[in-house]
Amino acid sequence: RMQKQILPYLKEMPIGNTVKGSVYKSKQKSHRRRWNIRPSEMSINTLNPIRAIVDGMKLTPNPEKAMIALSIGDPTVFGNLPTDEKVSQALKDAIDSHKYNGYAPSVGYQKSRDVVANFYSCPEAPLEAEDVVLTSGCSQAIDLAITVLCNPGDNILIPCPGFSLYKTLAVSLGIQVKLYNLLPEKSWEIDLQHMESLIDDRTTCLIINNPSNPCGSVYSKEHLKNVLSVASKNCIPILADEIYGDMVFPGCKYQSMASLSSDVPILACGGLAKRWLVPGWRMGWILIHDRNQIFGKEIHQGLVKLSQRILGACTIVQGAIESILNDTPQEFYYRTISFLKSNSEICFSELSTVPGLTPVLPAGAMYLMVGIEMEHFPEFQNDVQFTERLVTEQSVFCLPATAFEYPNYFRIVVTVPEEMMVEACARIREFCQRHYRPCSQDSNELDQ
Amino acid sequence: RMQKQILPYLKEMPIGNTVKGSVYKSKQKSHRRRWNIRPSEMSINTLNPIRAIVDGMKLTPNPEKAMIALSIGDPTVFGNLPTDEKVSQALKDAIDSHKYNGYAPSVGYQKSRDVVANFYSCPEAPLEAEDVVLTSGCSQAIDLAITVLCNPGDNILIPCPGFSLYKTLAVSLGIQVKLYNLLPEKSWEIDLQHMESLIDDRTTCLIINNPSNPCGSVYSKEHLKNVLSVASKNCIPILADEIYGDMVFPGCKYQSMASLSSDVPILACGGLAKRWLVPGWRMGWILIHDRNQIFGKEIHQGLVKLSQRILGACTIVQGAIESILNDTPQEFYYRTISFLKSNSEICFSELSTVPGLTPVLPAGAMYLMVGIEMEHFPEFQNDVQFTERLVTEQSVFCLPATAFEYPNYFRIVVTVPEEMMVEACARIREFCQRHYRPCSQDSNELDQ
Ligand SMILES: Cc1ncc(COP(=O)(O)O)c(C=O)c1O
Ligand SMILES: Cc1ncc(COP(=O)(O)O)c(C=O)c1O
Repeated sequence: RMQKQILPYLKEMPIGNTVKGSVYKSKQKSHRRRWNIRPSEMSINTLNPIRAIVDGMKLTPNPEKAMIALSIGDPTVFGNLPTDEKVSQALKDAIDSHKYNGYAPSVGYQKSRDVVANFYSCPEAPLEAEDVVLTSGCSQAIDLAITVLCNPGDNILIPCPGFSLYKTLAVSLGIQVKLYNLLPEKSWEIDLQHMESLIDDRTTCLIINNPSNPCGSVYSKEHLKNVLSVASKNCIPILADEIYGDMVFPGCKYQSMASLSSDVPILACGGLAKRWLVPGWRMGWILIHDRNQIFGKEIHQGLVKLSQRILGACTIVQGAIESILNDTPQEFYYRTISFLKSNSEICFSELSTVPGLTPVLPAGAMYLMVGIEMEHFPEFQNDVQFTERLVTEQSVFCLPATAFEYPNYFRIVVTVPEEMMVEACARIREFCQRHYRPCSQDSNELDQ
Repeated sequence: RMQKQILPYLKEMPIGNTVKGSVYKSKQKSHRRRWNIRPSEMSINTLNPIRAIVDGMKLTPNPEKAMIALSIGDPTVFGNLPTDEKVSQALKDAIDSHKYNGYAPSVGYQKSRDVVANFYSCPEAPLEAEDVVLTSGCSQAIDLAITVLCNPGDNILIPCPGFSLYKTLAVSLGIQVKLYNLLPEKSWEIDLQHMESLIDDRTTCLIINNPSNPCGSVYSKEHLKNVLSVASKNCIPILADEIYGDMVFPGCKYQSMASLSSDVPILACGGLAKRWLVPGWRMGWILIHDRNQIFGKEIHQGLVKLSQRILGACTIVQGAIESILNDTPQEFYYRTISFLKSNSEICFSELSTVPGLTPVLPAGAMYLMVGIEMEHFPEFQNDVQFTERLVTEQSVFCLPATAFEYPNYFRIVVTVPEEMMVEACARIREFCQRHYRPCSQDSNELDQ
């Protein structure tokens, strides 16, 4: 900063003057002579790949066809998946009680933490109120968890493809990210060998997202145990992003990471956003699983201290959480998950027969990944161009998986109404049929 | 980290082995052999002076007297200052509309930003929706503002006495703080010469809190103009913490910093917490005042990017804000402020006649600072011991101003019910009368 300001002085200086002396003088004078306000490194380094990619796309829908956005990870946008009436009522009751307008402790009301602890406690991984930190959405939970575990220069392991926030937060804090591969041919299981090969002595956190955004995958007990073995062997704590916890299709079983861990300490991040269909309410939590006192008091205390920076979740939502967790009827959860399963199956079976596409069947969450056999679409260089043209011609927008660091795939959000899903799939089929080219050998034949 | 782990290896190593080689090998093997999870520097450096001081105090009230806490900066705790029914109703209407459950843009709904912009816009400092970033409380507004303006190694100027969050946030980010003095004898005006003397070439932000916590002071137009002159001359942007904006007693006029600025760019931080008496709702904002394009697009963009880290305010509150700002009856504001003024006057006039105390009359906000003439209380070494004993004997708790880096004062929160305030003042009087000692000369006379 100084350097820049000194320059004009030097220019005006008569030859023979002691330059060094003058520089010193201007330094002591200390104040700036002109405005020069620059955004901080941290703000510059806060990168949002989804925005970077989407903002760079030419998204001009076909005026003949109504736009269908399969890109937005917000289950509320189409109005077909309202939250339960009990959930809304709980919030109104909290308002009417007039008890929840003041400041809560920075980690949340004791009672609300207790309710969350009880809701997620299980014999294998018991929880008490003290193990819960309420946060402003799962995003802040992830932010606090990364921030307490890592220093600048450390690194964390994150899934590829994976939710972009992990990298956004880490990089802005000067923490390096290393991407471990998920295997589409194994229903997006983790390539454990690859993951372990990335670990070094500055690795301070392993992020596991199960069920997964963007994959919709749900890991088996066995696979999770294998993940835990790697963490245990290398003494790396796990940040388990379980915001889609329990959102698994009938026939499939969800296990929390903590319920399977014997020694590995876990910060499990979750919230109301997805399962209760209220992402805007910004209610999240960290569940601290530390049965062997490996995190110990210090990590716990570190989270408490970090929570005091901006305080956490809205008190009205905190006041409602007891009723939200305990009184929401089972049918509500069941209805949501049945709908997501049915829509996923429609989408999967439709796209399975589309030439050039390879959808991967999900088992939970609200997403489905579709591979693009790029060699069959020579007009497009990548998933971004492919999905861009899909908008231009068919007014269907899917997020190119480059946004998840995974090129040649796109992600479909399966929360849209069924008719829309069917229509969207038909349009995707039409699009692929028009642009599909038989592979190079065949095209050579055509040339002859 | 490596170093610590190597030690046991060295111990077991047979003499004559090439130590260096072994160290290398263990480095390449890379994974840890035992758990060693340490909280990050940032979490360690997130210090909360209020907690540090209060947690260190022996606060055992006198069992004969009911506790009166004059320490809590939360106007809702005694139930005597409820928010307006319209405000609660606005929130319930937002719930019933079913329109505000999904994600809002990270900077807030356009409509909500527009409403805030209109509410605070004035001819001298016009605002549009684009100039508003909605945040999770004023705390997050301050966090984003400091974070966008400062890099580690930069410094900011903050008031002394002052709200402790500025230092907490800055220090945790590696930003240095320099404290400028407020002058109790001039109703806590800023010592401008002192302030200017602190500016150097790494000063990137000047924080002005008006009306003030903990002082309850409200600056005159002239004083604010003088502050702006210093900022302008030195080319330092201002973070104006105006969370108590408009909360000034009848007869006194509040001016926003931005309305007086001609060139100095200002990030004005505010929120619903205090004026609308709902601090738990976590609704805050940054108003970007940049008429001369000195911040420019980059600072604006930096704030937008930082807002994407955890997203901001609860959407239900965002949905209610139009009605909260536009439909809350004037009587509500008037009632609050009249009460605060009346309670302040009671407190001030009571304590003015207490031997050894020098209260400073506030003109706004909800606080009053009281000087302790320590030379008259030889039993106590400082404000912490004084207030500690006040609890033990009289069950009255006031925050020692050491928590605001200002020893030998204590802060009284004037939101308590009037009877409580009267009772508390009587007890403080009794306490002081018991412990007051005439100053040294007189006591010499007594000795003779
Ligand atoms: C995997 C994953 N984690 C965390 C989040 C953030 O959740 P919240 O909205 O509660 O901050 C999302 C949101 O899409 C997500 O997909
Ligand atoms: C001067 C000052 N600024 C900011 C805040 C924080 O406000 P909020 O609760 O909206 O985060 C407070 C709260 O006491 C305050 O006194």
